[in-house]
Amino acid sequence: MIMDSPFPKITESDVEDLKDRIRKVVGSTGYGAVLGLSGGIDSAVVAKLCTDAIGPENVLCVFMPSRATPADDYRITSNLCSKWGMEYKIFDVQPAVDSLSAILAASTDTPLDAGNIAARCRMIVLYNLAKKYGRVVMGTTNESETMVGYFTKFGDGACDISTLSGLYKTNIREIARIIGVPEEIIERQPSAGLWEGQTDEEDIGVSYDVLDPVLYAIQTGLSDEEISKKIGIPADTVSGIRKKITDSEHKRMLPIHL
Amino acid sequence: MIMDSPFPKITESDVEDLKDRIRKVVGSTGYGAVLGLSGGIDSAVVAKLCTDAIGPENVLCVFMPSRATPADDYRITSNLCSKWGMEYKIFDVQPAVDSLSAILAASTDTPLDAGNIAARCRMIVLYNLAKKYGRVVMGTTNESETMVGYFTKFGDGACDISTLSGLYKTNIREIARIIGVPEEIIERQPSAGLWEGQTDEEDIGVSYDVLDPVLYAIQTGLSDEEISKKIGIPADTVSGIRKKITDSEHKRMLPIHL
Repeated sequence: MIMDSPFPKITESDVEDLKDRIRKVVGSTGYGAVLGLSGGIDSAVVAKLCTDAIGPENVLCVFMPSRATPADDYRITSNLCSKWGMEYKIFDVQPAVDSLSAILAASTDTPLDAGNIAARCRMIVLYNLAKKYGRVVMGTTNESETMVGYFTKFGDGACDISTLSGLYKTNIREIARIIGVPEEIIERQPSAGLWEGQTDEEDIGVSYDVLDPVLYAIQTGLSDEEISKKIGIPADTVSGIRKKITDSEHKRMLPIHL
Repeated sequence: MIMDSPFPKITESDVEDLKDRIRKVVGSTGYGAVLGLSGGIDSAVVAKLCTDAIGPENVLCVFMPSRATPADDYRITSNLCSKWGMEYKIFDVQPAVDSLSAILAASTDTPLDAGNIAARCRMIVLYNLAKKYGRVVMGTTNESETMVGYFTKFGDGACDISTLSGLYKTNIREIARIIGVPEEIIERQPSAGLWEGQTDEEDIGVSYDVLDPVLYAIQTGLSDEEISKKIGIPADTVSGIRKKITDSEHKRMLPIHL
């Protein structure tokens, strides 16, 4: 029997609750917030939620381009900070990525290696600024990415407060419309920006419109066969997604204590 | 009333149990081990435990000097790998530290900032090698350091398997003697090696001979006053150590989920 648990939909009241939690949790630390602002929807949502929750003067947005960063991202991120009033800093991480790639001779390796290095260099920049200016690092990884392991461990996965945990990409789009993130950002093709032309959809193998209901159905305990029937996609696609969850378990775990 | 719970002492049988757990846990991943070998006692102990547990051919030791690294460390680490048969690689992280320091203009900041950057660059190197060669990253932070927050979050604190959790520095010295770590290493002044002349004792404020029994007494639930009487040190010293534990809580936590 197929259970009919509807995919969660975000309301205005959910968004107010989320802002309240940010206000309470960040407020309890006595520090402001710092985050990497990329030009994509997830970090734009985190920036606006924090701005609404604790005031733009307490939100430091850091744009950290590398060679793979589309030129549009500079305009988009600087416009957002002008529009919403957050502090804006730019740090080009490419020299550090080049230096580490040279040390590791990673130039002969896959774009993913350089991408992981870039994601980790961004973590180093954010944690340096967090210490320097008394900030907590707000995570920008959503539930869809977390579940399939689509993040760099100790890179973009590293944060003090996981702002979007439990929220699928579909929910992020709903929140974005509620809090007034520009449509241009909401409608961009999602990309981790680790190499030129990279798209989430190509990396993960399905679009978020397919992925999110499958992830939710897996979380509610349905079998591959049930999900396949319910959503109308091949059972192989479902089992492929389930395998991504299993294979990336180590990225979500605390270190194993012997 | 003062409880009399003796400080835990490591036996040969404890060491065999630890090796068994390494064999089982690392074995279950299907990968070999990689670790940063510094020339200090902690990483030497981890290297030898892993070598005894899974064979030296499955243990990759990585020496990652920076400008602050004592010249002796190269000789000590290369000798250990020759003696015990582990694979040995050297990656000088200083160019990456310089590059990130320049990006962050951290040259005007404290040695701790550059030290944190170096610790995180070492994490990047270890995780790049872990992926390239199919290895799990063995942590080398001991319980004493963990409790007082004497490590860099997402730097040397980042690992897949926390090899020395639950083992105080005092215990590491006992293990070192049992498994045959050279006395020269056991007797070195402990240092994180993040800047020249740095010593753990100066950073933490007391020697491990004082710190460890205090930490253990705190873990067993004694009050500052009771610990002061039991160990024969001022109550202020105890409360200072307790404050270090509280203040570093955020470094041991998973990200807060909203």
